[in-house]
Amino acid sequence: MIVFERAVRFDEVDAAGLVFFATIVGYAHEAMEQLFAGVDGGYPGLILGRRVGFPAVRLDCEFSAPLRYGDRLFVETWVARIGGRSADLVYRMRRGDGVLAATLRHTLVTTDLDRVASCDMPSDVRRLLETHLETAEGATGR
Amino acid sequence: MIVFERAVRFDEVDAAGLVFFATIVGYAHEAMEQLFAGVDGGYPGLILGRRVGFPAVRLDCEFSAPLRYGDRLFVETWVARIGGRSADLVYRMRRGDGVLAATLRHTLVTTDLDRVASCDMPSDVRRLLETHLETAEGATGR
Amino acid sequence: MIVFERAVRFDEVDAAGLVFFATIVGYAHEAMEQLFAGVDGGYPGLILGRRVGFPAVRLDCEFSAPLRYGDRLFVETWVARIGGRSADLVYRMRRGDGVLAATLRHTLVTTDLDRVASCDMPSDVRRLLETHLETAEGATGR
Amino acid sequence: MIVFERAVRFDEVDAAGLVFFATIVGYAHEAMEQLFAGVDGGYPGLILGRRVGFPAVRLDCEFSAPLRYGDRLFVETWVARIGGRSADLVYRMRRGDGVLAATLRHTLVTTDLDRVASCDMPSDVRRLLETHLETAEGATGR
Repeated sequence: MIVFERAVRFDEVDAAGLVFFATIVGYAHEAMEQLFAGVDGGYPGLILGRRVGFPAVRLDCEFSAPLRYGDRLFVETWVARIGGRSADLVYRMRRGDGVLAATLRHTLVTTDLDRVASCDMPSDVRRLLETHLETAEGATGR
Repeated sequence: MIVFERAVRFDEVDAAGLVFFATIVGYAHEAMEQLFAGVDGGYPGLILGRRVGFPAVRLDCEFSAPLRYGDRLFVETWVARIGGRSADLVYRMRRGDGVLAATLRHTLVTTDLDRVASCDMPSDVRRLLETHLETAEGATGR
Repeated sequence: MIVFERAVRFDEVDAAGLVFFATIVGYAHEAMEQLFAGVDGGYPGLILGRRVGFPAVRLDCEFSAPLRYGDRLFVETWVARIGGRSADLVYRMRRGDGVLAATLRHTLVTTDLDRVASCDMPSDVRRLLETHLETAEGATGR
Repeated sequence: MIVFERAVRFDEVDAAGLVFFATIVGYAHEAMEQLFAGVDGGYPGLILGRRVGFPAVRLDCEFSAPLRYGDRLFVETWVARIGGRSADLVYRMRRGDGVLAATLRHTLVTTDLDRVASCDMPSDVRRLLETHLETAEGATGR
C-alpha cells in the first residue's frame, strides 16, 4: 500500500463548492501514477518509452463524504487482484479529519499502445503490483 | 432518454493519446446537466438559486473501446430508478462509428447544499426524471 | 470572424464561485479549434494526420468581468496578423448579458510535431486564416 | 521568491503530446496558492473564511519551450509590483533540464467576494507579498 497525499486545489471544486465525482476519479489516477513510480522509468517510461499502458475497463466508486477546497486528502492505494493481463487497484480516500470520502475499485488492462490491444503484463510491473497486493482477507477489518 | 453529442477536445486526451477515465466521467456529468436543463432554471437554477444539488454516492463504469481526439461522442442518457431522495442515471456512450465506448450507472442523492445533507426530491425534478425513466425491462434489447 | 457559443459548466468554477483564468484560456482554445474546423479534416486532421500543430508562443489577456456558473459566453474570434510561420488570433468573450468578460491575443507558431520545430504554414491554413483576417484598423470601432 | 515544483501529469498533455497553454496557466495558479500559503489560514482561509479573493485582471505569457509528460517543472514565483489593491506576480517556469519553458506576469486585484468588487488589500497579505517583492532592478541579470 502507498499513501498519496493531496490538497484540494482552488479550481477543483464545482458550483456547489464541492469536488465533483470526475475530479475524484482523477485523484485516483494520480495515486496510480505514484504507485507505478516504483517501476524503473515510472509511468512516463512505460507510456512514452515502452509504449505499454493500463487503460481502465471497469471502475466502481462509492462516495461517502464531501470534499471541499482546503481539505487534505490521503489516498491509500493497494492492489486487490492480479490477473494475466489485468489487475484491480483499490483507492481509499480519507480527508485530513479522518473521514472516509470515497472508495474506488479500478480494473486496468495491460495494453500495447501501438496496437491499442491487450498484451501480457511486463514482469517488472507484475513484481511491483505483487509488492502492493492485499487480498480481500488481508483487507478485512479496515 | 436524451442524446448528448460531444466532440473529444484537443486537450482531453492523455499521454497515451486516449481519453482517460476521469474525463469520460466528466462527459457523463455534462450529459446530466443537459438532462436537468428540462427543469425551470436548469441545473444552475437548482444549484445557485434553490441550493439543491445531486452529488454522486455511487458510480459504476464499464469502458469498452478507446476514445481519441477527433472522435464524436453520443451520450444516451436515461433514468433507471427513482427513489425518495435518490435516483440512478445511466449513460451509454457511443462513438461516431457506432462503437460502444462506455456505460456508466450513477446514483445521485438530492442534497440541501446549505446543510450538505440529503433532502426530499423537489416535485419538478421528480417529474422530469419520470419523463426519462426507462426500467430495466424497457431497456432490454438495447 | 466566428462566434463560438459556450455555457459555463458546473465544474468550471473555482472556490470563489467564479471561472478562474486558466479555464478562460481553455475557452479560447476551444474557439480556436472551431476556427480551424474550416480546414479539411479540421484541427484533428492537422494534429494527428498531417502532424502540424500551432503551439502558443505568446498570450496576452485582459479580464474585465467575472464569469459564473450558468453564464452563456460568446467568443468572437478573428485573426489579427498573419506572418510566415506565425499568426495572431484575438478572442473577445462576452457574457449573455453583453458584458465584455475577457479579451485575449494569442500568437501561435506553425510547428512540425515530429520535430517539434517551427515550419511553414500550410497553404490551406493560410487561406483559412486570411478569410478571418481583420486588421487593427478594421477592428476599430468595435 | 518561492520555487514550486511540479511534475507534468499523465492527463495534462494534449493531442500533440505537449502541455497546452491553459494548463500552463493553471500551473501558475498552483504556484500562487503556494505563495499565499504564507498567510495564516492560507488561500482557503482567505477565500472561504474571510471572503477575500484575487482574480486576475491581466495576464501576459511567453512560452519558450515545450513541456511533455514526465517533465518536472520548477516554477520560480515572485512579486514584481504591489499597488493599493493590486499586485503583479511573475512566474518563471523551468524544466528539470534547466530549459526555460514559460514566463508569466499576472496582475491580480484584491476582491471582496461577497460584493465581487475590489477592496483594500489586507495588511497580512501585503506583508506577505512584500516579503517576496523583487523589483525589476533586482530581477535584472536573472
